[in-house]
Amino acid sequence: MCERMEKLKEECGVFGIFDRKNEHNVNGAVYSALYALQHRGQESCGIAVCEEGNISYHRDLGLVNEVFTPEMMARLPQNGQMAIGHCRYAPAGKPRRSDAQPMYIRHINGSMALAFNGALTNGAKLRKRFEMEGGIFHTTTDAEAIAYTIINQRLKHDSLEAAVSAAMEELEGAYSIVVMNHEKMVAVRDPHGFRPLCLGKSGEADLIASESCAVDAIDGAFVRDIKPGEIVVIDSEGVHSDESHCGQEGGLCVFEYVYFARPDSVIDGASVHLARRRAGAFLALEHPVQADVVIGAPDSGLDAALGYAQQSGIPYGIGFLKNKYIGRTFIQPNQKQRENTVRIKLNPIAATVKGKRVVLVDDSIVRGTTSLKIVKLLREAGATEVHFRASSPAFLYPCYFGTDVPRREDLIAVNNTVEEIAREIGVDSLGFLSVESVKKIAGGCTCGLCTGCFTGEYPVPAPKQEDVNQ
Amino acid sequence: MCERMEKLKEECGVFGIFDRKNEHNVNGAVYSALYALQHRGQESCGIAVCEEGNISYHRDLGLVNEVFTPEMMARLPQNGQMAIGHCRYAPAGKPRRSDAQPMYIRHINGSMALAFNGALTNGAKLRKRFEMEGGIFHTTTDAEAIAYTIINQRLKHDSLEAAVSAAMEELEGAYSIVVMNHEKMVAVRDPHGFRPLCLGKSGEADLIASESCAVDAIDGAFVRDIKPGEIVVIDSEGVHSDESHCGQEGGLCVFEYVYFARPDSVIDGASVHLARRRAGAFLALEHPVQADVVIGAPDSGLDAALGYAQQSGIPYGIGFLKNKYIGRTFIQPNQKQRENTVRIKLNPIAATVKGKRVVLVDDSIVRGTTSLKIVKLLREAGATEVHFRASSPAFLYPCYFGTDVPRREDLIAVNNTVEEIAREIGVDSLGFLSVESVKKIAGGCTCGLCTGCFTGEYPVPAPKQEDVNQ
Amino acid sequence: MCERMEKLKEECGVFGIFDRKNEHNVNGAVYSALYALQHRGQESCGIAVCEEGNISYHRDLGLVNEVFTPEMMARLPQNGQMAIGHCRYAPAGKPRRSDAQPMYIRHINGSMALAFNGALTNGAKLRKRFEMEGGIFHTTTDAEAIAYTIINQRLKHDSLEAAVSAAMEELEGAYSIVVMNHEKMVAVRDPHGFRPLCLGKSGEADLIASESCAVDAIDGAFVRDIKPGEIVVIDSEGVHSDESHCGQEGGLCVFEYVYFARPDSVIDGASVHLARRRAGAFLALEHPVQADVVIGAPDSGLDAALGYAQQSGIPYGIGFLKNKYIGRTFIQPNQKQRENTVRIKLNPIAATVKGKRVVLVDDSIVRGTTSLKIVKLLREAGATEVHFRASSPAFLYPCYFGTDVPRREDLIAVNNTVEEIAREIGVDSLGFLSVESVKKIAGGCTCGLCTGCFTGEYPVPAPKQEDVNQ
Amino acid sequence: MCERMEKLKEECGVFGIFDRKNEHNVNGAVYSALYALQHRGQESCGIAVCEEGNISYHRDLGLVNEVFTPEMMARLPQNGQMAIGHCRYAPAGKPRRSDAQPMYIRHINGSMALAFNGALTNGAKLRKRFEMEGGIFHTTTDAEAIAYTIINQRLKHDSLEAAVSAAMEELEGAYSIVVMNHEKMVAVRDPHGFRPLCLGKSGEADLIASESCAVDAIDGAFVRDIKPGEIVVIDSEGVHSDESHCGQEGGLCVFEYVYFARPDSVIDGASVHLARRRAGAFLALEHPVQADVVIGAPDSGLDAALGYAQQSGIPYGIGFLKNKYIGRTFIQPNQKQRENTVRIKLNPIAATVKGKRVVLVDDSIVRGTTSLKIVKLLREAGATEVHFRASSPAFLYPCYFGTDVPRREDLIAVNNTVEEIAREIGVDSLGFLSVESVKKIAGGCTCGLCTGCFTGEYPVPAPKQEDVNQ
Repeated sequence: MCERMEKLKEECGVFGIFDRKNEHNVNGAVYSALYALQHRGQESCGIAVCEEGNISYHRDLGLVNEVFTPEMMARLPQNGQMAIGHCRYAPAGKPRRSDAQPMYIRHINGSMALAFNGALTNGAKLRKRFEMEGGIFHTTTDAEAIAYTIINQRLKHDSLEAAVSAAMEELEGAYSIVVMNHEKMVAVRDPHGFRPLCLGKSGEADLIASESCAVDAIDGAFVRDIKPGEIVVIDSEGVHSDESHCGQEGGLCVFEYVYFARPDSVIDGASVHLARRRAGAFLALEHPVQADVVIGAPDSGLDAALGYAQQSGIPYGIGFLKNKYIGRTFIQPNQKQRENTVRIKLNPIAATVKGKRVVLVDDSIVRGTTSLKIVKLLREAGATEVHFRASSPAFLYPCYFGTDVPRREDLIAVNNTVEEIAREIGVDSLGFLSVESVKKIAGGCTCGLCTGCFTGEYPVPAPKQEDVNQ
Repeated sequence: MCERMEKLKEECGVFGIFDRKNEHNVNGAVYSALYALQHRGQESCGIAVCEEGNISYHRDLGLVNEVFTPEMMARLPQNGQMAIGHCRYAPAGKPRRSDAQPMYIRHINGSMALAFNGALTNGAKLRKRFEMEGGIFHTTTDAEAIAYTIINQRLKHDSLEAAVSAAMEELEGAYSIVVMNHEKMVAVRDPHGFRPLCLGKSGEADLIASESCAVDAIDGAFVRDIKPGEIVVIDSEGVHSDESHCGQEGGLCVFEYVYFARPDSVIDGASVHLARRRAGAFLALEHPVQADVVIGAPDSGLDAALGYAQQSGIPYGIGFLKNKYIGRTFIQPNQKQRENTVRIKLNPIAATVKGKRVVLVDDSIVRGTTSLKIVKLLREAGATEVHFRASSPAFLYPCYFGTDVPRREDLIAVNNTVEEIAREIGVDSLGFLSVESVKKIAGGCTCGLCTGCFTGEYPVPAPKQEDVNQ
Repeated sequence: MCERMEKLKEECGVFGIFDRKNEHNVNGAVYSALYALQHRGQESCGIAVCEEGNISYHRDLGLVNEVFTPEMMARLPQNGQMAIGHCRYAPAGKPRRSDAQPMYIRHINGSMALAFNGALTNGAKLRKRFEMEGGIFHTTTDAEAIAYTIINQRLKHDSLEAAVSAAMEELEGAYSIVVMNHEKMVAVRDPHGFRPLCLGKSGEADLIASESCAVDAIDGAFVRDIKPGEIVVIDSEGVHSDESHCGQEGGLCVFEYVYFARPDSVIDGASVHLARRRAGAFLALEHPVQADVVIGAPDSGLDAALGYAQQSGIPYGIGFLKNKYIGRTFIQPNQKQRENTVRIKLNPIAATVKGKRVVLVDDSIVRGTTSLKIVKLLREAGATEVHFRASSPAFLYPCYFGTDVPRREDLIAVNNTVEEIAREIGVDSLGFLSVESVKKIAGGCTCGLCTGCFTGEYPVPAPKQEDVNQ
Repeated sequence: MCERMEKLKEECGVFGIFDRKNEHNVNGAVYSALYALQHRGQESCGIAVCEEGNISYHRDLGLVNEVFTPEMMARLPQNGQMAIGHCRYAPAGKPRRSDAQPMYIRHINGSMALAFNGALTNGAKLRKRFEMEGGIFHTTTDAEAIAYTIINQRLKHDSLEAAVSAAMEELEGAYSIVVMNHEKMVAVRDPHGFRPLCLGKSGEADLIASESCAVDAIDGAFVRDIKPGEIVVIDSEGVHSDESHCGQEGGLCVFEYVYFARPDSVIDGASVHLARRRAGAFLALEHPVQADVVIGAPDSGLDAALGYAQQSGIPYGIGFLKNKYIGRTFIQPNQKQRENTVRIKLNPIAATVKGKRVVLVDDSIVRGTTSLKIVKLLREAGATEVHFRASSPAFLYPCYFGTDVPRREDLIAVNNTVEEIAREIGVDSLGFLSVESVKKIAGGCTCGLCTGCFTGEYPVPAPKQEDVNQ
């Protein structure tokens, strides 16, 4: 699959750096890290930097290199000791510039910047409570509800970390947060660990990142994952940990391994690339087929395709050329050519598929429309058979924890049998990875997994609709 | 290898559409085609369109989607019958906006637009002759010398194609050209066929393209390659061919197969993807090694790596994550992080290489600096051995036909033995594909190949330096 | 005077339209009105529009035509019934995009957009109070403190206008505000009337504007000034007025007549152009001189110069050519030419001044540096004598009500006698308008005037420094 | 009048600097000078700079500050010894980027950059001749025909100035040219002197400019006008003059005094401001009227209005506020407000005109549509009578020398009597300056004047239509 419309969306990536000895240009570090996390959110991004206790920020709609031009980078304070960054997908509807993060707020105890990845299950409820007390909101985001919760606790507690700890009693759902005030940085991962968060180091500087690939990007060293429920405080003296909220059932989103995270990242002890290859291998065991070549749908199906090929013994092939210049601003010139869009982006390599029985591996099928187009391309390029293998189970249930699973009526698997879907997308056979197997792909993972979108069973009770923001 | 600085540069891509029955938005077709040819030139691009005999154009520095914004597309005439397009690398030095193509000229016989891929070996000589006759030049390009040559012949001949044919007697070197006047389009490929050029069809519209992938991009059908020396005339009545200059020794640049062309293209009867896999297979035969995994340097080494793996029986692996968001405007924030650039772009996947003996396949080694960095990344990620295999021979000689081979003193293979290079880039072993083998990779190719950059033997005598433009 | 640095800055302009019968494109109306109010604030601007009860907005740093490109205008809802707009100067320091108005807030009672001109004398005090109650602030502006005050009252009162009325008990200082919720628009002017605000009509649509010139700009009809302390409510039924806060001492800023307002505006019954001509006439009476020509410093001194000429009988002349193309992005190429900047902007017309005794009229002298340059230009152009006349008294005291009077140490008149200033700026004589006269320039003005920056006497007690925002 | 559509257009401004001792940043000097000449051409502009014999350039559509951003200025060579600049109106039709100047050409004798103001009467004829000889054209401009003419002569003569001198035998019409090669700068004014050109000095640097205001803008000193027919050569040794083409009948365009030139310029010995005041005075003598106030249409009618007031004894008034923020990108939001455009740009000051008999002075009436709108505004603002006075005669004939006089059928005076025009634009009386008087406005002018657009009599025979470019 190649069209963004067809793919599930992750909601965000966060990053923080505390540069104790002023070894780094912290803005530059966040910039590079956000580049590495860009796959987690492409609608807006932002950087907040703290120089001598003063926080400045810039955020806007656009990719990192669109928002942070050299001119804009030059306008940020150049000698910051701390900085945090964020990249974002809007959960639904039009992206709004005012919803971009990091959120910046001023308060009696000073200023604070906050970057958040996840989704609250009681966001609307919290918002309503603060509004009844006279609070005003500038955005529609859970991030602002979180900021209110922390700030209200801050009035009753004498440190930022104590306020965060108290706020955790009120926040429900998925949240990986980095927050910074004039002197310290606090990172927290919700007690179920829905979204990843890790700790890194570069020289004497401490790093917080959604994924380890961001630590790599600035040549830092991965230190460890932050535990579900853990609060990490980074200040001039070092890194402190509060595990008083730890110990609950783990619920790391399995789709981080299947699709969201970058394959070079390692999350909660398990390699994403390896998890995908294992998914492919399980697929080969569960849905074997006689074929001549195994290809992946670029880019998300490549690793699983390799795993399928290795397990099955069918040769791995490179089936498509993906146009690397097609960006967000690609315009479809006119109606006549609208239907062919997919071929500008993805052209089959006939030398690989012509006259062959092809196994096509992709991470999932959401609506099925793009799968249909890709299969058609393969047939036109001469494939004699096309066997589709999805490296995850079929989506059947909503996600309340930050993944943009479409409404049930749009999920092809809700109202169709596997055979019907196969017919719909025009393949000779179709196989989804089983729920049992998807639970096993992340070998060595130290955190329990949430597979709620496949099973309807979540680590926490599903929320009432009116309590969820928007 | 991943850094553009390190890669050889192709000089251009050309495209033309003659939309006999007004089935297409010709601007949109060129736009999509240039997207597909973007790999052939990323510094500037342009579109010239002919509507009711009047030619309009726009061209500028930048990628296709940067130059042709929706606003700019809307400003072009919307009902053209013909259009041509061009994307370009400057051969050396700073890119100049005024050198962007298509070249547009006005003349006594009307207007003309011209797009050119290649390099003349007598460009400066021609220019000097025209200047002595009172001509003035606005650019430094061979394209302008070609325009002068054609126009001067046009004064003596009564059709554009006759002028082109006569001009061919004067033009020396590599040229694939599409030229359009108020009523017809003429395409020509030099008698040795240094650069590719093919014919396609979309409905009743005829297409000319540097590579077949551009025909695919607009859902057209590939018709045939244009022969070395062939002149193709497209007008309201159909497609006409003049083969009077055909029959000379073929000299298609072998590097089109090794690196320049897109793997989904088929050139002169041979699949580029297959040629690369064959190059990998020959490499495995010529330079076998005991190893655990074969990986390719993204993206140009992937096909050859697969060929090496299949021939050798060593498993194919995915060794790197290439950041797909790193564009031309990526800025390196500060000196401290400059050295790490490569890792923002390319991060090794430890799960693939850790504790493994790795065969790393790339298309070539030019200066060696990027190879060194990539090898270092693999070692840091835990590779126990790294064996480098280049899917082409070592560069030893200049190219006069449109490839930007560096000066001899910058070519690592000129002054170093293979062992010295291996030491320099830090690998356990190194193997280049032999000249004999590279000549065989394009199985079924209907055109002879030029391998001059490896052997110093060209299909035509090497030119005197003062005759070459710039 | 011509350099912005040298001029006092007004802080804002506001505008609102309630288009009862959908006769207008309300966005377009605000756009045109903001153009007419651009002189009141050039750093940022914004438009908020209400379509079927939903409020959308856009705001950014830049001039109206920079922020509201055709693309941006097209993105706003196209069928709004109400809209408000704002243009702004930041009171000090760097302009911040997040401080741009209209302020938009979400609350339990719905959304609201607010545009504010003025300055609170208890802004910081209010902010502190709300922060102690758990409120969080996104900006440093008084506008946000006002929004909090209104919203907190809204929880206790059952209409927006009742909340505004109650909020007035808490707000101190200068404020002209337009606020809009999903169904109505409320405009209010502080009880002293420091800043102007008027009511207009265009067809059935009601208009609110800082100055009557904005009403003219959309071909509307001026209706009347809003009284100091008056609350005007505009809803689907019509225009309602609440005068319960009226009746206090008037304090309209006299500098609105001298410099801030546009000469074609009429404020509180007095023509700005006429006020300036009267200022010039008073000047001629108070500081007569033997001279050959009276010229004004473009553009702010022209009207007063004409008044001086008419009163004195000395011919009026056009002394300078002001370059109308010099915009905000004019860059001073290098150090060598830095000093000549003034001449690129303002060139003396020798034909007017050569060999003449010149009376130069400008609105005021703040620091004196630009006056010095202009006088020098006149001398170089051949003026034999230069007599400077300022159409306002010398600045001696701070302004707490929205005018950016520099710190006392930067005011030339604080530490220098008139003779010393004359020497400093190189003139043969110098005269400031007297305080008595400046009070009389706005003949027919229905509101008392504040002349505190000249006298230190304000309509309300000067605030404590810590209570003022920033 | 205030709308560009209604005004005649000048075609260009030129500037050159030869910085013998490297005292200046020559790019910056040209930038400032083009700012001062911006009124002569607002569609495109360009700078060419020569550093150590190499010429670089940049040119584009847009105003000086739009084209020459700080980034673009930084990209030009920073140590040039010579530079030339140009700003331009296209004579008709859409502006084309490729037609922007300075024209840059490469030739056997090196490179050359050329800036041209004027219009040839044999441009098309020359072009045809060169095309027949094999020349190719990139543009539609006379500038390219001039370049060809000079270059062809350069092949036969051994210096640039000799080539220019020989070229003058072939060029017919109006031309003020600055041309620069690797070592010298040559300026030439056609033998009739249709367009102005002057010489200045700044330190040791020599300057060439269309108007003296450009010399002023960089704080240079005006030296003298270049004579009609004079060739000025500036090289490392100094300034040389060749007057061999001098002595023909003078034909400086009288409209330079009436409208085109900046009032602070002095052309051929006569002050533009004074010429306009004299035009106003003659008007008062020729067309007296009983009235209460004389106002000018901003900005072009202000000087003449002052002259009328002084001669007639009727008080001078400031009748309009012109919005100085209305730029080229002002968009007219929707149909409903289209008609009101004029009021956004120009608002009458009621305090000046209400209840008054008003004399309105403007430079000319072309089509009459804008005059109609302005008169209407005055009536709505309460003027009891409006008497229109045009400070030039009525346009009756075409201009072949660089002024964009509309086609005869669009000239209101061709088919209407003065009374009919008065009725058309709604005034109580109307008077045009007589041809006899307009010839006398430039008192002291050292050059004969062309008044062909009023009289049909030109200093040279009117050309055949087919010989004129476009």
